[in-house]
Amino acid sequence: MVNIRYVLACRPEGEATESHFRMEAVAVTQPNEGEVLVKVHYISLDPAMRGWMNAGTTYVKGVEIGMVMRAFGAGEVVVSQHPNFRPGQMVTGLLGVQTYAVEKGTHLTLVDTSVAPLSWYLGLLGMPGLTAYFGLLDKGYPREGETVLVSAAAGMVGSLVGQIAKIKGCKVVGIAGGETKCNYLLNELGFDMAIDYKANSKIDSLLQEKIPNGVDIFFDNVGGPILDAALTCLARGCRIVICGAISQYNQSKPYGPHNYLKILTARGSLTGIIVIDYYPRAAEAISEISAWVKAGKIKYREHIISGIEQFPQALHALFTGENHGKLLIQTLHS
Amino acid sequence: MVNIRYVLACRPEGEATESHFRMEAVAVTQPNEGEVLVKVHYISLDPAMRGWMNAGTTYVKGVEIGMVMRAFGAGEVVVSQHPNFRPGQMVTGLLGVQTYAVEKGTHLTLVDTSVAPLSWYLGLLGMPGLTAYFGLLDKGYPREGETVLVSAAAGMVGSLVGQIAKIKGCKVVGIAGGETKCNYLLNELGFDMAIDYKANSKIDSLLQEKIPNGVDIFFDNVGGPILDAALTCLARGCRIVICGAISQYNQSKPYGPHNYLKILTARGSLTGIIVIDYYPRAAEAISEISAWVKAGKIKYREHIISGIEQFPQALHALFTGENHGKLLIQTLHS
Repeated sequence: MVNIRYVLACRPEGEATESHFRMEAVAVTQPNEGEVLVKVHYISLDPAMRGWMNAGTTYVKGVEIGMVMRAFGAGEVVVSQHPNFRPGQMVTGLLGVQTYAVEKGTHLTLVDTSVAPLSWYLGLLGMPGLTAYFGLLDKGYPREGETVLVSAAAGMVGSLVGQIAKIKGCKVVGIAGGETKCNYLLNELGFDMAIDYKANSKIDSLLQEKIPNGVDIFFDNVGGPILDAALTCLARGCRIVICGAISQYNQSKPYGPHNYLKILTARGSLTGIIVIDYYPRAAEAISEISAWVKAGKIKYREHIISGIEQFPQALHALFTGENHGKLLIQTLHS
Repeated sequence: MVNIRYVLACRPEGEATESHFRMEAVAVTQPNEGEVLVKVHYISLDPAMRGWMNAGTTYVKGVEIGMVMRAFGAGEVVVSQHPNFRPGQMVTGLLGVQTYAVEKGTHLTLVDTSVAPLSWYLGLLGMPGLTAYFGLLDKGYPREGETVLVSAAAGMVGSLVGQIAKIKGCKVVGIAGGETKCNYLLNELGFDMAIDYKANSKIDSLLQEKIPNGVDIFFDNVGGPILDAALTCLARGCRIVICGAISQYNQSKPYGPHNYLKILTARGSLTGIIVIDYYPRAAEAISEISAWVKAGKIKYREHIISGIEQFPQALHALFTGENHGKLLIQTLHS
């Protein structure tokens, strides 16, 4: 059996492109004691990947040159040398950008595909779902009637944050790029307002005009000038939850928010959500999100690209915001 | 009687200079019902003054062109038309940059000069003292053994924050400009470490080297590159308390901290201290600070400049950090 994989060829300074990866075809290795061989069905594209391409440590250590590019994945157990797993079971884990992965059993999570499709465990019921759930509820603690502003609102995390905020009785404003995404927020997801950052150059004055009483919670996925604009429109006692800064991951020096002193004058606070801190509470989130989906309160959209050879283009699409919904690669096994 | 006063002549774009003020000599007006005439003895120079020179509202409305420049002051009641005040009593309030002030009695605070000298009520026992006290204790909540980093550490607020942190059993590191100030921190105030930002161009790597376990509380008075440097040296669960950004008040567009995402990776938080929110609890702070002074646990230094005509130079000194200790003007009444 052949494993098709993408390894990190060199480190990008700015934008990550195809030239920073090398595709390799190698023989599939067999698992040792405690390990499991997984046939990868889905590879998840996540903003964090850009950080993993850097040297040094942010949340986790960067990928080493020549090693398989790190990625979350979902697939089927083929061979198991770990007592908790047997062939045919479905699992998720950091399987990497490859079609077959050998991983320690202790690093894999069994998932129940009778509850939800396998791919959902990389999105709605996976790391991004937990990020949205705990980031909004545990860091932003929304109260009924409050106004929640979300950036990258049509993205995986943003769209879920907005929908959970609606469930909690908040007024929800989403920032997204383009009419299609804005219509999606308004017509499909039930957002109260959508702001198209591509069609408006003065986001700060637009926010101030549209949200005259200010934002109680700003859930930020993008950073950069959008963060700065949101900082001009804070209600007293606001909570800013930083999830990430996708607009800045390809910059060697991230944009610093000039308006950070507005947090002071608004008597606000800024914190961040790091999803790995919440893994011990994953079951709680999965159970509640699943119930909301069943009740028709949460809609979920996937953007699935076929073929592992599309990986560099898929990563590019993620950072330029071309995807609609959770971005995944479906590997094509013969 | 003649009142010598400084009015705002025009608004600065960047640095505030003498040209933005006009000195006037006018007849002292008499108080109406409910008002008090105060002979001003001390005028306080505070970083907030730069913001007051701008149009619009930050904490409070900007000073209008042609009006007396706003300032905290302390002085003696000369004529009272308010039942709570009588001639000879000492008061503080927003008396303005002038030698005589007519102010509503409801806006004045009686002070007890048998407890501490009058001038102290503009510093240690006034607005800056409350800022340090509540900013550190109520926003930073220091715990014994933690590391507290303070910028503008030789300044009024910073020196007090550091000393209170020492009382609470913390390790205290101060950032200040120049050897004299750094020696003052180490030898007079009992700081554990002093970092001279004027003698070191790479504050970030210096902090990382000197504080390998990171900072638990960063109390920031300056903003700009020093804030950015501190953000590279955060311990997990750190609290960043923004008090102000004196390095940026003369900038039309404040410096944005590029490293703000470090707050996320450190699982930290950023909040601010606005002292007016704590005025109802002033007595609590004054009582505890006074007790610490009596017990020899807190040292206090004033930098007093004589003559109201020194006001523009004094304001310049404040923003260039030339003062040592709390900066005040003592008016010279004949």
